[in-house]
Amino acid sequence: MTIKKPRPSGADGDERGAVSGRRRFLTLGTALAGAALAGRAKAGDAFPPKDPEWSQMLGPGVVDRPYGQPSEFVKDVIRRNVPWLTASPESSVSFTPLQDQPGIITANGLFFERYHGGRATVDPAQHKLMIHGLVERPLLLSMDDIKRFPSVSRIHFIECPANGGMEWRAAQLNSLQFTHGMVSCAEWTGVKLSTLLEEVGLKKEAKWALVEGADAAHMDRSLPIEKCLDDCLVVYGQNGEALRPEQGFPLRLIVPGWQGNVNIKWLRRIQIGNQPWFTREETSKYTELMANGKSRGFTWLIYAKSVITYPCPEKPLNRAGIYEIRGFAWSGKGRISHVDISFDGGVNWRRARLEDPVLPKALTRFTHEWRWDGKPALLQSRAVDETGFVQPTIAELRAVRGVNGIYNNNSIQTWQVKADGSVYDVQLS
Amino acid sequence: MTIKKPRPSGADGDERGAVSGRRRFLTLGTALAGAALAGRAKAGDAFPPKDPEWSQMLGPGVVDRPYGQPSEFVKDVIRRNVPWLTASPESSVSFTPLQDQPGIITANGLFFERYHGGRATVDPAQHKLMIHGLVERPLLLSMDDIKRFPSVSRIHFIECPANGGMEWRAAQLNSLQFTHGMVSCAEWTGVKLSTLLEEVGLKKEAKWALVEGADAAHMDRSLPIEKCLDDCLVVYGQNGEALRPEQGFPLRLIVPGWQGNVNIKWLRRIQIGNQPWFTREETSKYTELMANGKSRGFTWLIYAKSVITYPCPEKPLNRAGIYEIRGFAWSGKGRISHVDISFDGGVNWRRARLEDPVLPKALTRFTHEWRWDGKPALLQSRAVDETGFVQPTIAELRAVRGVNGIYNNNSIQTWQVKADGSVYDVQLS
Repeated sequence: MTIKKPRPSGADGDERGAVSGRRRFLTLGTALAGAALAGRAKAGDAFPPKDPEWSQMLGPGVVDRPYGQPSEFVKDVIRRNVPWLTASPESSVSFTPLQDQPGIITANGLFFERYHGGRATVDPAQHKLMIHGLVERPLLLSMDDIKRFPSVSRIHFIECPANGGMEWRAAQLNSLQFTHGMVSCAEWTGVKLSTLLEEVGLKKEAKWALVEGADAAHMDRSLPIEKCLDDCLVVYGQNGEALRPEQGFPLRLIVPGWQGNVNIKWLRRIQIGNQPWFTREETSKYTELMANGKSRGFTWLIYAKSVITYPCPEKPLNRAGIYEIRGFAWSGKGRISHVDISFDGGVNWRRARLEDPVLPKALTRFTHEWRWDGKPALLQSRAVDETGFVQPTIAELRAVRGVNGIYNNNSIQTWQVKADGSVYDVQLS
Repeated sequence: MTIKKPRPSGADGDERGAVSGRRRFLTLGTALAGAALAGRAKAGDAFPPKDPEWSQMLGPGVVDRPYGQPSEFVKDVIRRNVPWLTASPESSVSFTPLQDQPGIITANGLFFERYHGGRATVDPAQHKLMIHGLVERPLLLSMDDIKRFPSVSRIHFIECPANGGMEWRAAQLNSLQFTHGMVSCAEWTGVKLSTLLEEVGLKKEAKWALVEGADAAHMDRSLPIEKCLDDCLVVYGQNGEALRPEQGFPLRLIVPGWQGNVNIKWLRRIQIGNQPWFTREETSKYTELMANGKSRGFTWLIYAKSVITYPCPEKPLNRAGIYEIRGFAWSGKGRISHVDISFDGGVNWRRARLEDPVLPKALTRFTHEWRWDGKPALLQSRAVDETGFVQPTIAELRAVRGVNGIYNNNSIQTWQVKADGSVYDVQLS
């Protein structure tokens, strides 16, 4: 739904919702205990109450499950897809349930999926990485070889550039999972690509790399050699274990801060050349169709972006009271510098608290306390990164690019909170 | 096995294994390509080789698995227990496969387990946290209430103080998983305990807290109020999802840097008092039996510790060549300041590289390149934390405490590398 953007209206805006200083916690407590909670014990209450049934019987012992699983009570926290979005599930996407992600690390079981030819099942004992082309010493590396090289670990997000793509024309999915769930974040461990390229020895004419996956799509993209030598990683570890099949087991390229699709999964080949290859996936796909019918190519970078994850359509408010607004911000250009929050559709802004650690090209968690008066509100978050780049509005993006495109929508998200606490995905005109 | 500690022997020690500067990567490469690899492509090799079978067929599509699982090729990366160690699996421990953990985050499915009455299955809709005793306003909080409070996310390790306990008398399990696998690390999200205690209002006499779990053991421990107000957390999130059942779903106490058992799982009750309770788990258990037959109580703190995870008994070396030594260091007192590595049983030491981010009371990854000459070697790592505390040898610990105890073995681990590359758990006399 598109609604009119509010205008500044004098003294009200800036003070509304102010919650500051030490009093805020006590105030929050009073609100909880008085309203939502009704849990403050009366003088005569028995403490502790009677044991629940699970305190009266032995549970399963150790290695009942040698590899653990989530609680049976959180079965609805899963990846989901939008069936009409793509022609087949083998060339499609699933969205991570961001509304249930508590910290910056995405659980491996919930990391969003994007396949171009389905999820390849690769035997690590047979898998090889080839590096050839304009190099002095072409190499064919086994997984054991790759694991012998000096290793690094980095926490980085990956975002599909189509994340938010349905919003260009204001599709009404009314779901955080579907508007923003094509971003996830993990601790990756592997080898710097620069280490491998030093190993093969780049020839003087080397300017580009073709990186190719071992999946049925042979997914391939061209990358400028400067990025390869800067911070790209060839990884085999993800959040404490082997890379997951959905993320390219046994080997994936990480191109920090760049579009998800160039982070080639099931990485099998790196060819060094002196010009881009103009593959299918960087010409007919992953280019931005502008209003004038021309396309922008090689738009790799993920610009500063943020979204409020609580409240959101899946996590509405209850009654008036004090809430903690929560969300994530990220930028492909480096660290998040700050995040501002608006409760009135962008008229007034307040600085959010950033949670440590604030890492470059990683999800950054932000929070802000808010006293909701029970009236309709328009919640927004706006990220600014260390280069000074400010997350734009969707109107600003459309003014430049029109609405023909799918990719690179990093616009400010507006959540409309209604008087009953329900939350809707809206856009301001 | 106990073997004699080497003595300094002149010029040899300090230079042996030196790998420094830019040359190391090329040298490593040469070693790889020349020896282990034999993978350098000859001029006539076809690049790329023929497609593997998985590149020729579509894989499963999205949400084939709404909640993902590890690759079928890493089935041996699991938690394991030592059946003879405890009387029953319901009061026992399983060990995390540290030898396969690539970064500082432990995968949720592999986080070590320690149960005192089995794994409780707790319905989050019914679960309540009571806070009572010497407080102004006792509270009974539901999970929804707790999630409304201001939240924080922190990366912290948890270690059972019995980790390494079998080594006091030099048990020969010859396995990194069993000598050090009772430590894990995760990103936790929840509420500061100080926020909840401010909410209930501590009375002036408040000096101690009894924290109790909802499991069949009613696991309970006394904590000084200063620690509760310092950095303790009441958490419901773990590595991007709800706390795992093994870790106390839906609610766990995190006591950063203190023994695992005080990090009460299935947290149901916090009673505030003016003296410790001297519960079973802090008197007959979790106290250190000294050589003179007396016990030390309330030894909560985890002191600086480290271990080399590659090579290790489960991950031997191959042939002579350049390797990257890898491991983890941690301290309950704060950040790791540095880690030194010895290849000759502690005669000579070299500074390891620490991987960012180096976080307080979190696993810290270290690496160091080493040219192995194919001769027997004694590998050690020694952690120093930001307070200047230096990880001791097992001989130094035994001189103070004897060998009656089980807990708080933070000694330097020695791995003996034999000429065939196999690795053994030894102790130096």
